[in-house]
Amino acid sequence: MKDRQKSYEQYQSISQKAADLNYAAAVLGWDQETYMPPKGFEARGRQIATLSTQAHALLTSDTYKQLLLELAGSEGLDEAQVTNVQLSLEDFEKAAMLPEAFVEELAQAGSTAFQAWIAARRANDYQLFAPHLAHMITLKKKQAAYYSFEVHPYDALLDEYEKGATVAQLDPLFESIRQELSPLLQAIATKTQVQDEFFYRQFDKDKQWQFSLEVLRKMGFDFEAGRQDYSEHPFTTSFAPGDVRITTRVQEQNLAALLWSSIHEGGHALYEQGLPESEYGLPLGAAASLSIHESQSRLWENCVGRGLPFWAHFYPRLQLQFPDQLNDISLQQFYRGMNKVEPSLIRTEADELSYHFHVMIRYELEKALLDGSLNPEDLRDAWNAKYELLLGIRPPNDVQGILQDVHWCHGSFGYFPTYTLGSFYAAQFWQQAVQELPDLNKKISAGELIFLKDWLREKVHVQGRRYRSEALCKKITGRGLDFNAFLHYAKQKYAVIYEEGAQ
Amino acid sequence: MKDRQKSYEQYQSISQKAADLNYAAAVLGWDQETYMPPKGFEARGRQIATLSTQAHALLTSDTYKQLLLELAGSEGLDEAQVTNVQLSLEDFEKAAMLPEAFVEELAQAGSTAFQAWIAARRANDYQLFAPHLAHMITLKKKQAAYYSFEVHPYDALLDEYEKGATVAQLDPLFESIRQELSPLLQAIATKTQVQDEFFYRQFDKDKQWQFSLEVLRKMGFDFEAGRQDYSEHPFTTSFAPGDVRITTRVQEQNLAALLWSSIHEGGHALYEQGLPESEYGLPLGAAASLSIHESQSRLWENCVGRGLPFWAHFYPRLQLQFPDQLNDISLQQFYRGMNKVEPSLIRTEADELSYHFHVMIRYELEKALLDGSLNPEDLRDAWNAKYELLLGIRPPNDVQGILQDVHWCHGSFGYFPTYTLGSFYAAQFWQQAVQELPDLNKKISAGELIFLKDWLREKVHVQGRRYRSEALCKKITGRGLDFNAFLHYAKQKYAVIYEEGAQ
Repeated sequence: MKDRQKSYEQYQSISQKAADLNYAAAVLGWDQETYMPPKGFEARGRQIATLSTQAHALLTSDTYKQLLLELAGSEGLDEAQVTNVQLSLEDFEKAAMLPEAFVEELAQAGSTAFQAWIAARRANDYQLFAPHLAHMITLKKKQAAYYSFEVHPYDALLDEYEKGATVAQLDPLFESIRQELSPLLQAIATKTQVQDEFFYRQFDKDKQWQFSLEVLRKMGFDFEAGRQDYSEHPFTTSFAPGDVRITTRVQEQNLAALLWSSIHEGGHALYEQGLPESEYGLPLGAAASLSIHESQSRLWENCVGRGLPFWAHFYPRLQLQFPDQLNDISLQQFYRGMNKVEPSLIRTEADELSYHFHVMIRYELEKALLDGSLNPEDLRDAWNAKYELLLGIRPPNDVQGILQDVHWCHGSFGYFPTYTLGSFYAAQFWQQAVQELPDLNKKISAGELIFLKDWLREKVHVQGRRYRSEALCKKITGRGLDFNAFLHYAKQKYAVIYEEGAQ
Repeated sequence: MKDRQKSYEQYQSISQKAADLNYAAAVLGWDQETYMPPKGFEARGRQIATLSTQAHALLTSDTYKQLLLELAGSEGLDEAQVTNVQLSLEDFEKAAMLPEAFVEELAQAGSTAFQAWIAARRANDYQLFAPHLAHMITLKKKQAAYYSFEVHPYDALLDEYEKGATVAQLDPLFESIRQELSPLLQAIATKTQVQDEFFYRQFDKDKQWQFSLEVLRKMGFDFEAGRQDYSEHPFTTSFAPGDVRITTRVQEQNLAALLWSSIHEGGHALYEQGLPESEYGLPLGAAASLSIHESQSRLWENCVGRGLPFWAHFYPRLQLQFPDQLNDISLQQFYRGMNKVEPSLIRTEADELSYHFHVMIRYELEKALLDGSLNPEDLRDAWNAKYELLLGIRPPNDVQGILQDVHWCHGSFGYFPTYTLGSFYAAQFWQQAVQELPDLNKKISAGELIFLKDWLREKVHVQGRRYRSEALCKKITGRGLDFNAFLHYAKQKYAVIYEEGAQ
């Protein structure tokens, strides 16, 4: 027994050292996208690469392997320890498939591609980014081969972001979206459109920023254990439950740019702040999956942050900050405005329905890039054609088209589908919260959000990686992923918004 | 020959990976003191410790050792390569004396002590910090024993910051200071004091900040390769020549708090930006020594930044920013005010003469702590007694006394003397620059500073660690460290300031 505990401690020590390196890389990544001066890029790229390689080396070392094999299935460990070992062994088997040099090459390519993406956006020219993307896709094909796959190379990459996800599973889901959401979108298009031009009045940036901090505070974001900073593309990153960073953007002539991004990232951040500190660097100290992560951000952003009860509390406060801009707009008008459904170009600014078509486009393109049926140099045309086909709108330039997302720079192919999965989980969790928590909407109307954070903390956050996405969902809601929850939520919401007619 | 080059590349690769880890630790350290939320401390401590340990492990590995031994003295390397190998071997021999676990312990203790120091400053109570300092001193004694020493344990630590420095060498230098500078201080005390109360008027923080950025720009600081941010204690840190960070503080009612700190750190930063990028991670890509580093900051801060020519250009610009505060103050008054000699409590705000007594106090206390003749719990009393004896002024509290410097938190015992050495090197370099560069002061009066930066870049920055402090000084000025250069500079400067009499 004693030996087992000693081995467990050694396993824990190596895991935590690797976490230190990965969290350090996250600090460098955060700095790169917030404060780093431009000439820092090159060295930063190699530094992040070295940290990733060193972490990878620890987690694929013979010592680590031996410890895991020794501990797996052995007696003398408690339940949490058994779970940690089992999940680490899964991770090990996956990580061991990639040679160290390849991991380093991938990280270095990611950093260089990110730099090229920034330059390409500045020049509004995809071709500046295309060769870097082509190189990245070559690497991702190589990676899929290292992982091996049975049906589609994309499966190997999807599995990295959503354990067990495959093209065979996701194709039908996106087909349902096409079947069910297209008609809904079309029906809405025939209604009188809601007004939202007031979002594009002049809003002082600093006041917007302060307001978003106030919202985060109300959500229960702990500012002693985190910050919000500016970046080109909003993201959340964590260096420990005690240090979780949100980044976001702010635009003077678009109130929507900051507010819902900040709430969205706040949802992610609450998850990270709520992970058990005692399991630092171990699977139980990590989030369940990307889709469950996204369920937290989408639940706060949409189910809460685009709901009437939330704004019953916050809108009068927002009006106080911006009387000249908003005093002529009623709560109902504001509510309808933020929920306007209209196909548009930018994924992160899309309404809750057309959002999933943005994801579908990326899903289909990634699939085609991976199986070789699409060449990177034809990607811009393919992108634009799909936008025209699925959303009826063609990007007038690359910044509003193919250059809008940062993900491909970092080689995150297979990531986008988790956004859609996350939205659907969010709808299910929200439905459950409404059932379980008495007076939910009444409390939200009074600005009391902490109890919802506490519910999510208990149901989701503190669980760490104990359950996979579907299993966690089943534990919380009694059933696995169910597209109907979202469909029901969406139909009900938009029926009210669009039946009442516009202002 | 080919094998030699291959071995050299391997040596280079390990050196650079270690540099990646150390630079990453520097990023984490920078973030810790600028943006990190308080609950991030614990995890940050262990993350920095892991990075340091991993770097240390690389640089003390058998592989590295074998490469160094193979390359040392071998043929087939060019001159720069030979120098790199030789210096790395020196470093190896030193680093190999410390066990890995000890390096980790030291880093962890440093992080915890830093947190305690912050808390102790907040509470203005040295006793909160004392146990952490006591622990640190125990570790430093252990470290001295690991390094081994012949005469005094402090020698082993001094050598870390200034190669070859010993108590036997420094005692006479501080004795000269006592002999030569004490009478100068006393003579000045009998003169009519200069006025400087205008520094403590109300100065908008943001305008001060903007002005300091303008000064840095004129000095040739490359803002594409660096930043300036706020921190409790000003410092400079580098993550590569392309990314050098200055931090400083700003006070509304003290114009002196920001300005000369910023110029001082700017001097350090120019050095780091000027190191050869091609030698990244190798000795020739690093600074010569801490004292030479300090010579750069002190030269800019004092010889340039407290000089009349500099302000002939900048003072009218400063007045434009602060007309209400400064229009009644002439350039001469401003110049005399910034050079006021008056013993005071805070080292970083001390005048150029009494500064060296601040250093002497720390030097003598460190020596006593290391040889055991002083206990940490008696340190506050010893500190206060020395201030009374040497500067005639007793700290009224700990924040203005023993808690003022961050160095001891990080275990930097032996560091302070490099400040005095640096000031003396600065005076020698400045003397040389005045001789070599035609119309030096005239150009400075016209706000042209770049040519001085270029001279320092050629003479000092690009040399990296090619020469030790004394040898570099000899190469530039024709002689080794010479206290008389500083003495001459000081006597001349203060004779003018104090002969002219106050306003």
